[in-house]
Amino acid sequence: MKLLEDTILAKGIVIDDDILKVDSFLNHQIDPVLMHEIGKEFKRRFSHAKITKILTAESSGIAPAMMTALEFGVDLIFARKQKSLTLRDDLLTAEVFSYTKQEHTSLTVSKRHISPGDTVLLIDDFLANGEVAGGLISVTRQAGAEIAGFGFVIEKSFQKGRAMLEETGIQIESLARIASLKNGTVTFAGQ
Amino acid sequence: MKLLEDTILAKGIVIDDDILKVDSFLNHQIDPVLMHEIGKEFKRRFSHAKITKILTAESSGIAPAMMTALEFGVDLIFARKQKSLTLRDDLLTAEVFSYTKQEHTSLTVSKRHISPGDTVLLIDDFLANGEVAGGLISVTRQAGAEIAGFGFVIEKSFQKGRAMLEETGIQIESLARIASLKNGTVTFAGQ
Repeated sequence: MKLLEDTILAKGIVIDDDILKVDSFLNHQIDPVLMHEIGKEFKRRFSHAKITKILTAESSGIAPAMMTALEFGVDLIFARKQKSLTLRDDLLTAEVFSYTKQEHTSLTVSKRHISPGDTVLLIDDFLANGEVAGGLISVTRQAGAEIAGFGFVIEKSFQKGRAMLEETGIQIESLARIASLKNGTVTFAGQ
Repeated sequence: MKLLEDTILAKGIVIDDDILKVDSFLNHQIDPVLMHEIGKEFKRRFSHAKITKILTAESSGIAPAMMTALEFGVDLIFARKQKSLTLRDDLLTAEVFSYTKQEHTSLTVSKRHISPGDTVLLIDDFLANGEVAGGLISVTRQAGAEIAGFGFVIEKSFQKGRAMLEETGIQIESLARIASLKNGTVTFAGQ
């Protein structure tokens, strides 16, 4: 998606070989016009699927997932992240490890909001090691719902998440695919 | 706002005299059509102000703030909540107490995203005791920016936040004002 790649080049900050800071337009300050275009692009790429719910994780996934939900005209659910958790009958939960924060957290979704009849599109801001995506897959499957696809705003193709998700055979759409952040430079896949 | 009040009556769950659960359309599962109407309504109510930024707090404020930012065509910033915090030069911070979680957290906003020239509209899902709103006021003032107004999706008018914010003399707009949750029933102000 050219607008997104241009924005990454103009406003993204390469911190090191693994970390791209996009807090001026995606995950702290958010550009609503860009998010609107992102929502429309996900709609185009998954228009063949009969999506009934959008699922993401708090907090950075909410804005792009919100605009995607608006385009599909279906409800959005954001999984909550909690540090420790007493198991509760009314919650679907999955434990995930955050490489950024170096800690385990639980993703939780209320059982009332995803049902066996649902076809779910999973959306998140980043695909890196695939930990959060794995957690979202787990809660969706626990609910007995179908996964229509994965949509990521930015994929760091050099980390292991992409390969892990490809094993599911489910459609993956990343709007910007970064092949490398070496030498302080963003190189997109296919460049 | 009639659509919002109707949705609260149809889908809100009164837990006790203080707590209204709205996790099926506002703060866990989110209705994007309702959020779109909420964004338009905030735009109407603050159309006289030259808003340059929308500020909210993660996570439940993000969806309504996102749609409001889209209507105004300005960037949205969400303050992050962190449990403990090493003071950092690049962050504006305010400590707030959460009555729901019975804990202190720090709201943080990057100094790069709010400047003295900004006119900020503060948006949140709930106004209850006003703790988060107070924190957002603090970070905005630390940045030297002006506050144009406060927009809340739901106000629990029987808690102390409303009175606290009125003392600032700044415009407050709550799209649904709840006078009481007694006897398991939602009573709107003015009914």
